[in-house]
Amino acid sequence: MVQVAIYDTTLRDGTQREGISLSVADKLRITNLLDEMGVVYIEGGWPGSNPKDAAYFEQVQSLELKNARIAAFGSTCRKGVAPADDANIQALVDAQTPVVTVVGKTSMLHVTDVLQTTPEENLRMIRESLAYLKSLGKEVIYDAEHFFDGAKLDLEYAFDTLQSAKLGGADTIVLCDTNGGSMPWEVAELVQKACELFPAVKIGIHTHNDAELAVANSLAAVKAGAVHVQGTINGYGERCGNANLCSIIPDLQLKMGVQCLLDDGDLSQLTLLARTVAEIANLAPDSHLAYVGKSAFAHKGGIHVAAIRRNVDSYQHIDPALVGNKMRVLLSDLSGRGNVMSKAEELGLDVTKAEAVQVLDEIKQLENDGYVFEGAEASVAVRMFRNKPDYEPIFKLIDFSVIVEDRRGRGQVSEAMVKLEVDGDVVHTAAEGNGPVNALDLALRKALVPRYPELADFQLVDYKVRILDSQNATAATTRVLIDTQRGGARWSTVGAGTDIIRASWLALVDAVEYGICIVCAETESFVSEPASD
Amino acid sequence: MVQVAIYDTTLRDGTQREGISLSVADKLRITNLLDEMGVVYIEGGWPGSNPKDAAYFEQVQSLELKNARIAAFGSTCRKGVAPADDANIQALVDAQTPVVTVVGKTSMLHVTDVLQTTPEENLRMIRESLAYLKSLGKEVIYDAEHFFDGAKLDLEYAFDTLQSAKLGGADTIVLCDTNGGSMPWEVAELVQKACELFPAVKIGIHTHNDAELAVANSLAAVKAGAVHVQGTINGYGERCGNANLCSIIPDLQLKMGVQCLLDDGDLSQLTLLARTVAEIANLAPDSHLAYVGKSAFAHKGGIHVAAIRRNVDSYQHIDPALVGNKMRVLLSDLSGRGNVMSKAEELGLDVTKAEAVQVLDEIKQLENDGYVFEGAEASVAVRMFRNKPDYEPIFKLIDFSVIVEDRRGRGQVSEAMVKLEVDGDVVHTAAEGNGPVNALDLALRKALVPRYPELADFQLVDYKVRILDSQNATAATTRVLIDTQRGGARWSTVGAGTDIIRASWLALVDAVEYGICIVCAETESFVSEPASD
Repeated sequence: MVQVAIYDTTLRDGTQREGISLSVADKLRITNLLDEMGVVYIEGGWPGSNPKDAAYFEQVQSLELKNARIAAFGSTCRKGVAPADDANIQALVDAQTPVVTVVGKTSMLHVTDVLQTTPEENLRMIRESLAYLKSLGKEVIYDAEHFFDGAKLDLEYAFDTLQSAKLGGADTIVLCDTNGGSMPWEVAELVQKACELFPAVKIGIHTHNDAELAVANSLAAVKAGAVHVQGTINGYGERCGNANLCSIIPDLQLKMGVQCLLDDGDLSQLTLLARTVAEIANLAPDSHLAYVGKSAFAHKGGIHVAAIRRNVDSYQHIDPALVGNKMRVLLSDLSGRGNVMSKAEELGLDVTKAEAVQVLDEIKQLENDGYVFEGAEASVAVRMFRNKPDYEPIFKLIDFSVIVEDRRGRGQVSEAMVKLEVDGDVVHTAAEGNGPVNALDLALRKALVPRYPELADFQLVDYKVRILDSQNATAATTRVLIDTQRGGARWSTVGAGTDIIRASWLALVDAVEYGICIVCAETESFVSEPASD
Repeated sequence: MVQVAIYDTTLRDGTQREGISLSVADKLRITNLLDEMGVVYIEGGWPGSNPKDAAYFEQVQSLELKNARIAAFGSTCRKGVAPADDANIQALVDAQTPVVTVVGKTSMLHVTDVLQTTPEENLRMIRESLAYLKSLGKEVIYDAEHFFDGAKLDLEYAFDTLQSAKLGGADTIVLCDTNGGSMPWEVAELVQKACELFPAVKIGIHTHNDAELAVANSLAAVKAGAVHVQGTINGYGERCGNANLCSIIPDLQLKMGVQCLLDDGDLSQLTLLARTVAEIANLAPDSHLAYVGKSAFAHKGGIHVAAIRRNVDSYQHIDPALVGNKMRVLLSDLSGRGNVMSKAEELGLDVTKAEAVQVLDEIKQLENDGYVFEGAEASVAVRMFRNKPDYEPIFKLIDFSVIVEDRRGRGQVSEAMVKLEVDGDVVHTAAEGNGPVNALDLALRKALVPRYPELADFQLVDYKVRILDSQNATAATTRVLIDTQRGGARWSTVGAGTDIIRASWLALVDAVEYGICIVCAETESFVSEPASD
């Protein structure tokens, strides 16, 4: 039984984040994922605000959801207008959702300066909007915008607006920290007061992260009596973001013992959900997010790693499997053979102790030369299988050369040539690019695609360059990190050297080799498995 | 008067973040910035753990700091060893800092499983290590590792370890949530208890963000009586990071009215500090960070923007200028031109209003193309004097070309050719380098040194590359930052474009031009000034 209902607004408030834009198909896919996680409410959008949201509400009706209830969001009727005659309210009705969420003004500042109406008219707008929607059989959630700031300005009026929402028949009243600047103790005090004044109404909380307190404010509200928490996946949202459900859900369930996912939901899907939503939103997943980040259970310090070998819980606050994440031991020049062995297990590679020692020696030598394998596990894996006795490289380099020119009257040119041995044949290709590395990448693909057509699906999704040992300036060692993606798989490789072009080449080669030898092999065996069952 | 002392550990715990590695010069630069902000303590590193930290502690002694006290970090003496005979403790002493911070074990789990010693021996290690360092006249801070987890396992023993620290003479006892999984109310309860039990000792807090509560836990501790807060700039740190000082400092000062920066510190430097540290660490600044993020006061929603036009405070929780940030919607040409004018004054350049507008237009266009001038003031200055009517460029580019090759049997070659017009003459030079940019740099110098011999003293001391818009991978826009030094003067320039070689070239040209037109000119006038007095 759910003690606190999670209300996800990734699809509405989350898309206010700079740079996010979701298609209808994206929104439907995220809806399914949230439903599978066991979230109670999914706010789909603001019908009437744009045609995409209208299309979503039409199409979401044909999704077969396990449990989640879809909510449409909108504001109260306008001043001087009856709800039945208000276009926004009608759009809410037309969305045909079981739940509607109506936002209204709490703060006198907004009533007078933004709405430019009277305090009484604002109360009427709230009361009548809700009553109208209740009369149509909707579950009605009331979002009290700027509640905490409004209460600071005029406590009595702020509670008058809640009273109007109650009179209008709100099933849940949500106190919003719209500007995100409230302190946890301020939130707790006012939530407690609302719970006392309106014992028959469910009280909810909606926070923003402008003081880096959105999660804490949500938890403080639950401790003070709130039974409904609004937020977004990965904390996406305007400015500094909304309250991050990927932290709030495990904090509630694992730390506070508060059940907030539906019975057949599954907390261990959380990490996958977080990263998939990031991919759909076309944002790089933040590695350092609590619970779901790639680094959330990664250990770098030699002392920490040694301690973890003695007791796995010595430097982690929960078992990462509970949220579908995993512990990572970062390889560095301080690492021991044990680190390599456990990394091999993590990657599902069969590596002997002698091979581990060999790989470790190579890694130490390369780290001395400027490599860092921490963020580039695929380059470690490539070294592991290159050390296997039956290893056959997918190609051998004969030559490459790159030319970059800027000539008066002719402009810029970047051109690369690649000569390889592939399966005993010599392949010689050339390509132009936006820059020297892009040209090399294109020439390499041109050479290999005939033999490895799966390469055409590989996407280079990130390219990072770091200059080490900056004392040597342009003669310094350069480290290049490349992220490659194929379908749902993503892997990182590293190359280093004083020449940035050659360092990039080395990282490109690892990316191609790991992709062909591991990712494509895995996908195939994954596809064939069900047949052999 | 400071009510809560800020203890920055960016240089030690912050570097545990995956992917961060700071040089000694980087660390010294950050030390200066933190000192200017008004931070009380700066933890410089762990002497004895690596040669870089040893070099830092030697060099930091010659910095002229306004206020900050430098701390060296280390662990207690080992089991069965007296502090005077312990290499780690000796390294702490050798660091010659006024403050030492000693970490010790609180948790029985760590005493038995990790240290593999007895509870009594652990108490001795704490007590004697601190007493020894006190006897040498140090200010001693004790970090109680895993305090909150340890107290859950064995409350009495956890407080016994604090008692040992007190007996050893600790000036401050810091309660650490090392694994980052504690709740604010748990932190508050135990901090309050420690304050009651040890009224004569200052109690501090050190938190991690594994439950996304590091900031809230730090504030809860202060409310419960803590007077010392440890954290890092931008929340850098292992796993999910340390407590973020860029949120804690404004939360304390602006929300709670707690003074935590020294009198001549300046909160309005916070945004600049946060972004500069990110640049130095070569990490993309997180746009969505509270207070200091580029999006922290950015407004996307049409309703918000309209409301802001009616009342500026309607959708922001503080005035962004308080932390040196700005609202993005209201960014006007006027404020921009003002910025250019004051930058010109700062550089001693005489720039008219019309010229400022022209420079501003150019800068806006270039920022659109991927430039960022925040860390590259010399490139702004170069644009100012290029806009002067009497400007004569020191050279004109005709051609450059770069070749990078890796050929079987011949190895790697990087070669550059440069053809310039210098004072009406055509100069054509070529050079080999460690990589393409180094080759270009050498060829450019070769061409210019005969006319500008002072170029021979220029040192390129740093070269950083960031890939923007990573979606486009190797075809993405590249931004290059170059730091150049001549004597005591150091300046930064920027170049950008899809081609890394050309972006580097643009930054190199700015560096040479600024050096010759400004630095050398200044040095001459500086040299001649005393004579004219």
